[in-house]
Amino acid sequence: MTRYRIDFAYDGTAFRGYAANRGVRTVQGELETALQRIVGAPVTTAVAGRTDAGVHASGQVVSFEGDADLDTEAAVKRLNSMLGAEIAVASVTAVDDDFHARFSATNRTYHYRVREDPTPDPFTRRYVWHVGEVLDIDAMNRSATAFVGEHDFTSFCRSVEGKSNVRRVLRAQWRRIGPEAVLEISSTAFCHQMVRSLVALMVDVGRGLIAAEATAGVIEARDRQASRGVAPPHGLVLWSVGY
Amino acid sequence: MTRYRIDFAYDGTAFRGYAANRGVRTVQGELETALQRIVGAPVTTAVAGRTDAGVHASGQVVSFEGDADLDTEAAVKRLNSMLGAEIAVASVTAVDDDFHARFSATNRTYHYRVREDPTPDPFTRRYVWHVGEVLDIDAMNRSATAFVGEHDFTSFCRSVEGKSNVRRVLRAQWRRIGPEAVLEISSTAFCHQMVRSLVALMVDVGRGLIAAEATAGVIEARDRQASRGVAPPHGLVLWSVGY
Repeated sequence: MTRYRIDFAYDGTAFRGYAANRGVRTVQGELETALQRIVGAPVTTAVAGRTDAGVHASGQVVSFEGDADLDTEAAVKRLNSMLGAEIAVASVTAVDDDFHARFSATNRTYHYRVREDPTPDPFTRRYVWHVGEVLDIDAMNRSATAFVGEHDFTSFCRSVEGKSNVRRVLRAQWRRIGPEAVLEISSTAFCHQMVRSLVALMVDVGRGLIAAEATAGVIEARDRQASRGVAPPHGLVLWSVGY
Repeated sequence: MTRYRIDFAYDGTAFRGYAANRGVRTVQGELETALQRIVGAPVTTAVAGRTDAGVHASGQVVSFEGDADLDTEAAVKRLNSMLGAEIAVASVTAVDDDFHARFSATNRTYHYRVREDPTPDPFTRRYVWHVGEVLDIDAMNRSATAFVGEHDFTSFCRSVEGKSNVRRVLRAQWRRIGPEAVLEISSTAFCHQMVRSLVALMVDVGRGLIAAEATAGVIEARDRQASRGVAPPHGLVLWSVGY
């Protein structure tokens, strides 16, 4: 058997999340069904970053075990023809036996896109949160800076019993790109709904509803009630995974 | 009565074209239904550029007659809340009585987007024609240059009896923008399916199937059989209208 890596992208709009779930349409379910037809046997994949319903990925990675003689170039073409337009496979590559899409990953980078213009944009409506008001990007970046470093992110995690919510954020910055404000955030890992929860707080900072300087206190509270809910899923995209 | 102008955008994916057509969902049908609810009486609009099924617009313009006391800012908000996410109204403006969205327009600009990379892109699949092979942009621009100026475009028009197919193309140029090749083309006006027909020929030039130097001969043939069919609608967007 040989270990393989797949790099792929998906529009999460019409999926009930990444993780396979009997009876509903998920990205993992579609991918493993297609892989099974190529490999000729059931395939279980490991994924770099599980995404929730409505969240997208441009640089998702999975690993799986398959026959040593898999024709990887042909597999890319067959996967793309089977998977339809919502999922796009960029490459299938043979990798070292110790490569694991999830456990070998050293960092994940997400983008979150926000539209300030009051006029909605039909062309980005599935990929950008339409806030519709001008945001104070400088204040949002002061808030973002407070997240960088190792912190207990319990205030921003949908709690999972028995697990630590300590994560190390490597970088977090908002930039204006055309008519959008785009957050780029990298971390060793993220707890469940963490990026959307951080975004909800930073956008409230940008709206002037709370001060950027209050951010550290919300982290220290280690209480989900201290944060500001979660931003909608469709503005979020798993951008890349570092190994 | 006062003359008004609406500037708006739409994602044409799920519409059966712009023009109202009983029993099917069209952009004009949706817009006029919403306008009627605001104005309180049936409204007929004139449009700058009718688009076919699946074609988009980012800078479409209509004009209509309404009461002099219409609150234009409130109308923008009400239209956007009624029309849903596929149509976005940027502005409603009172204009001179002699303004007519179609007859006052001096030029129309369209963009056509093509993706060369063999990997499909889930995020632009509704707005970009995925050709999936590298194109010779220099050759496509030599072909584009042949279209500039006043010509009889019969070879590129879905024929309409009793009308001239002479048009004056002001500008036609392909540029690489990120992973795409994008045509910008401006003309005093376009005949039916003209841009998609010009694109089909230029992409065949870019693929090396015909020589750029053959373009003038196809124009001179004044015969639809001499051209190369039509490119798919979803790569096309009405970009702006000049008055």
